[in-house]
Order: sequence, then C-alpha cells, then structure tokens
Amino acid sequence: MAKATLVSLANALGVSRQTISNAINAPERVKPETLARVQRAIAEAGYRPSAAARQLRTRRSMNLGIRMIPGADGINGSIYDRFLHSLAEAAQERGYRLTLFYAASDADEIEQYDQLLDVADLDGFVLTGTHRDDERTAWLLERGVPFAAFGRPWSDDGDPFASAHAWVDVDGGAGTEEATRALMAQGHRRIGFLGWPTGSGVGDDRRAGWRRGLSHGPLADDASRAAAGELDIQTEDGVARGADGAARLVGAGATAVVCASDSLALGALAALRSLPPGTPPPAVVGFDDTPVAAAIGLSSVAQPIESVARQIIAVLTHGLGGRDDGTTPEPPRHVLLPAAFVERTPHALGAVPAAPSP
Amino acid sequence: MAKATLVSLANALGVSRQTISNAINAPERVKPETLARVQRAIAEAGYRPSAAARQLRTRRSMNLGIRMIPGADGINGSIYDRFLHSLAEAAQERGYRLTLFYAASDADEIEQYDQLLDVADLDGFVLTGTHRDDERTAWLLERGVPFAAFGRPWSDDGDPFASAHAWVDVDGGAGTEEATRALMAQGHRRIGFLGWPTGSGVGDDRRAGWRRGLSHGPLADDASRAAAGELDIQTEDGVARGADGAARLVGAGATAVVCASDSLALGALAALRSLPPGTPPPAVVGFDDTPVAAAIGLSSVAQPIESVARQIIAVLTHGLGGRDDGTTPEPPRHVLLPAAFVERTPHALGAVPAAPSP
Repeated sequence: MAKATLVSLANALGVSRQTISNAINAPERVKPETLARVQRAIAEAGYRPSAAARQLRTRRSMNLGIRMIPGADGINGSIYDRFLHSLAEAAQERGYRLTLFYAASDADEIEQYDQLLDVADLDGFVLTGTHRDDERTAWLLERGVPFAAFGRPWSDDGDPFASAHAWVDVDGGAGTEEATRALMAQGHRRIGFLGWPTGSGVGDDRRAGWRRGLSHGPLADDASRAAAGELDIQTEDGVARGADGAARLVGAGATAVVCASDSLALGALAALRSLPPGTPPPAVVGFDDTPVAAAIGLSSVAQPIESVARQIIAVLTHGLGGRDDGTTPEPPRHVLLPAAFVERTPHALGAVPAAPSP
Repeated sequence: MAKATLVSLANALGVSRQTISNAINAPERVKPETLARVQRAIAEAGYRPSAAARQLRTRRSMNLGIRMIPGADGINGSIYDRFLHSLAEAAQERGYRLTLFYAASDADEIEQYDQLLDVADLDGFVLTGTHRDDERTAWLLERGVPFAAFGRPWSDDGDPFASAHAWVDVDGGAGTEEATRALMAQGHRRIGFLGWPTGSGVGDDRRAGWRRGLSHGPLADDASRAAAGELDIQTEDGVARGADGAARLVGAGATAVVCASDSLALGALAALRSLPPGTPPPAVVGFDDTPVAAAIGLSSVAQPIESVARQIIAVLTHGLGGRDDGTTPEPPRHVLLPAAFVERTPHALGAVPAAPSP
C-alpha cells in the first residue's frame, strides 16, 4: 500500500488539506467530530506530517535557493557537485528542497535573489565561493534575508567568528600545512607551492598553510629560505598551467610540490613524464581529493563536504521556524571544519599501450 | 547602473508589479496616463520582461522539478552532474529554474511529485534513469503532468519513437559498436565485454552494440564465436568489480575489453598492472568519457550531454505556454543523439614513486 500523504488522507476523508493540517497543528480550529475522524485516520494510516503539511502550517515555501555554477573542468568542479548532492539530501531530511538557478556572475546572482524572493518566496539561500568584498553577503544582510555560506567571510579586517552571517568552511590551510609537514618528515627540504595568484582568500589560505608547514622540523631553515625565493608559483588553475608551473619548480630544484588543486597537481604529474632520464621525480600533493586523485593514486587534501552540507542546512533552517524550532539548541553559526591529508602511492594505472598487437 | 527589473521599475514608478506586467502584456487593462508613464520608463530603462514578469502573466511557477540522485562513486556519477549543470543553464535561458529534490527510490520520487505538484505548482518534471516498467512515467502520464525524460522508454513492446511522452537519449549501443569496430580494425579478434547484468535497458543496449561490432570485418566469425562464449562478463558496476571481470577476460584470452562504464574500465586498467611479465596488456575502452578517462588517457564513449539538456528543456518548455508559444515550431518529441568513440593513448601519468629520496 502506498504511504499516506496529506493529499491521499484529505481525499480519502473528503476534507481539505488545511483541515488535516489544523487537526495536527491547531486542533482547536477543527470541529470535534471532524477532528476525531481525522485523528483516527491519521493513526490508522501511520501518517506523519510531510513538507506539504508543514508548509500549510508555516506558509513557507520550504525551498532554499542555491546558484548553479558553470561547469568547471570536471576535476575541481566535482567538489561543488558533491556539495550539491549532500545539500539536497540534508535539506530533504528537514523537509526542504533546493531551487537551483544558473548565474554567470555575482551581479547576476544578486539579480536572481531579487527575482526569487519576489516570485518564489524562497525561505533562504546557500552561498558558495565566498570571497573578499563579497557583494552578495552584503546585499542579503541589508535585506535581512536568511542565508548561510559555504566559505568564511574573507575580509582582511574583522574576526570571521564574529561575522553577522552564518558560515561553514574547511580549514584548507591546515590541510596544506599537514601535507607539507609530512613531506618534510620524509626528508624533503625543497618543497614548492603551485597555487593561484595572491588575492583570493581560499588560495592565500592554502599558500599560508604550506609556509607554516615549512617552518617545522630540523630542516625548517633550509626549507623556508628556499621557498621564500623561487619555489612559490602563482598561476591560474588548470591542468596545462599545472604542467608549466611544475616544470619551473623542478627546474628550480624542487623535490616535492604542494598544489592548490587536483587540476594543478594532475598537470604537475603530466610534466614529470617529460623529465630528463635520471631526474628523480618529485612528490606531488593535490587538493580536494577528487575521484581523479583516487583513481591515479595522487596524494591530496580532502574536505569533509558532507559535513559542511549538513551543518549549513542545520544552521540555515534552524532560524526558519521549521520543525527544529524551539526543540533543539541553535547550531553553531560559524564552523571551521578540519581538512585531511590523504597520502597515496601513485601507480602506473595508465601505463599501458593504446593498441597492443593482439 | 543596475539593470532594471520588474521590482525596481515598479518601485521607481510607485505602481504594482502587476501594472508593469499589464502594461507589457495587456495594455488595455491599464489607465492611459499610467500606461504612458510605464511605457516611457520601460523604454528609458531598456527593461526586458524577466521571469518575474512572465510569471505574473502566465501564473506559472517557472520551475521544473528534477530528482537529485544519491552521489555515486564520483566517476560514473559525473555524467549526471554534467547533465544538471547544462540543464540549469538551458532552463535559465528560457526563464525557468530547477527545483531539486532528493529521492532514494522511484516510489519516493513519485511521492515527491505528488507533494511538489500540490504545494509548489511545478510546471513540469525532468526524469533521468528511465528503465523497463518505469512507474514514474506511467504515474505522470496518467495525471497529465508535463515531463520529458533523459532516456528512452525501454519497454520490450512498442516503438519508443511512438511513445506518449517526450524523451531525449543517446545511442550508447552505436558507441560501443564503433569502439568494437575500431578494435577489430586494429587486428583484435578476442574482444571481451565487461558490463552489467542483463535486464537493464541501458546496459543491454551497450552490450548489443559490442555484439554488432564483432560481426563486421574479416575477423567477424572468429570474434563472434569467441564472444558468444566466455568473453561476456556480467557484473555490478564499480572499480573493484571491473578489476575482477577484466582478470577473468584476460584469463580467457581477451586482447581487448569494451566496458559499460569508466568505473569498470578503471578497474580493468588496475587489474592489468598485476599481469604476469610478458603478457601483452589488453586495450581497454570505457563509457561516458569522464574526467578520469581524459586524465589517464583512457579511450571511452562520450555522450553529448549538453545537447541532451538543451533538447529536453526545449521540448518540455515548448508545451508550457512560455515565450516560445506560437512563435517556434514544436521541437521533436523523441530524439536519439549519436555517441562518439574517443580514442586516446594511455600514458604513465601516475607512474611516479610516492616519496622519492630528496
């Protein structure tokens, strides 16, 4: 038998959906004989109020908006996709759905907020890709729109833990620091960094972690001196850029490379294939622990993305008057989760000729 | 200056949004002096009616529902993610957004349809993962709900091109056939297939393509005889299963393996690393041309996923009375797009030691 829903119960009893909702949430508004009939049917059907019933009660849309970013190279973009899967699941558990809108820029995203609040009564928004001087958070704060961000506020002044809005982030810098310390412990002292141009909060944080990592252990002085010089590469993201940057680092004597993304790391590995014979191939560490990294045995730094999604939904929906209201303590509004260094042994997975003679 | 929106115009003029909408769509309902004022402001602002304005006119939600599937292994799942990115972009171009709901099963998905139609007035749905005896399409057809499917109807009887509902699909079987023929042309005659258990429309189609490929060329008799025997492996999806299956195929003398997914192919490549020395490594072809395949130089069969998304949005929204209505011919309701065999040369991308001595 199909599970009872608000609709099926209302149809079976010949009453309105609002009557069912009232019988659950405001029984004093329902005539006693109707109330008894509805309550009996609810008990018999094992009915539990759904999103529909809650929505009738709360007059909320039970919908949270999130921007779909343009598809990336399929490597780094996969972290967004994993986040979206987890977010949809976590939202559903609390009776919310996601409204997905495409936006090509922050300004476009703000225009979408405006329209969505106007026509769709969205209950709140989830932001991704926060950055310095983020006009999106300012716009939402000014209008008192509920939202939570994946990504801390990256402003130079002010404590992110005192931010006016809720956010959940991952401590990427601690991840690159851990990776760098692991390489130091293996005896490396010329460890390069292959990252994005300075100025992005996320990228600078990962670079800072690498620098901190260099300052530990008996080789710290040598490592830090080398890194301060030619072992810090700034480049746009992408496999081809990673190959170029890694070649420069190896040319400068790097024996290990910590990268700001798996795309860059993948490029770095590709560059190593064209090293002169006899050159010891450097160790490479990526970031985001994408499926590609797992497939080819690339060490990487992993983000606990499912946990990020659950905590974002928890803090955002808590304030919206849903089922949590008044029954659970408010979740923390500013959360920095640890990243994890995942060490792997690269293997010759692809090292087979395309078309061997049969 | 910020782009004019329905809201900003209405605020600036001190009229309701409905008045702006009427001035555009039903000018006879607006008082002449107001109409002149609104039309002047529209012209000056270069305002173009947005989703919000269209929605006021059409009284539609301008929202299409799609189920978020549980996250897969990050390899095969990436095809769904690419589809979702393209779908959001194509929808936005026509003024529609996506409502994303999580469902763990088809029955769950139907329950969500029921609720979403009830509380959110969705205009239609996009289905993915169609299969034999799909109760979702039957449910939607019975209720006259607009929808379009990524995936043909896989029923054994009946012509899919005569289906009552709109669908767009990719001819995966033609893709595995093309890959098999390419391997035959290279001289392979023992070409195995590593696929899912029979019974799934998608999987059976890919297997059938492999069989058709074997029946071409001078080696056809040998190849078909061999394949009819021990060279057809049925296994669940996944990297580990792929490794097991490939080992069995190589043991049976296969010199090439066509796989139903990149996950299986990745496992097959891993299995080849443990072949006894001197064994010529078989050629491997995957399916879906995922980022992992591109990264490691794995040949694969690609689906034109952006085109699938665009055509699904075109056929679904055409019937919904949006801006297309009456001005463009109806898009085709049943579309089978070609797959493309992408041939690559595997390389030793990961063939570097984890921690070389510095």
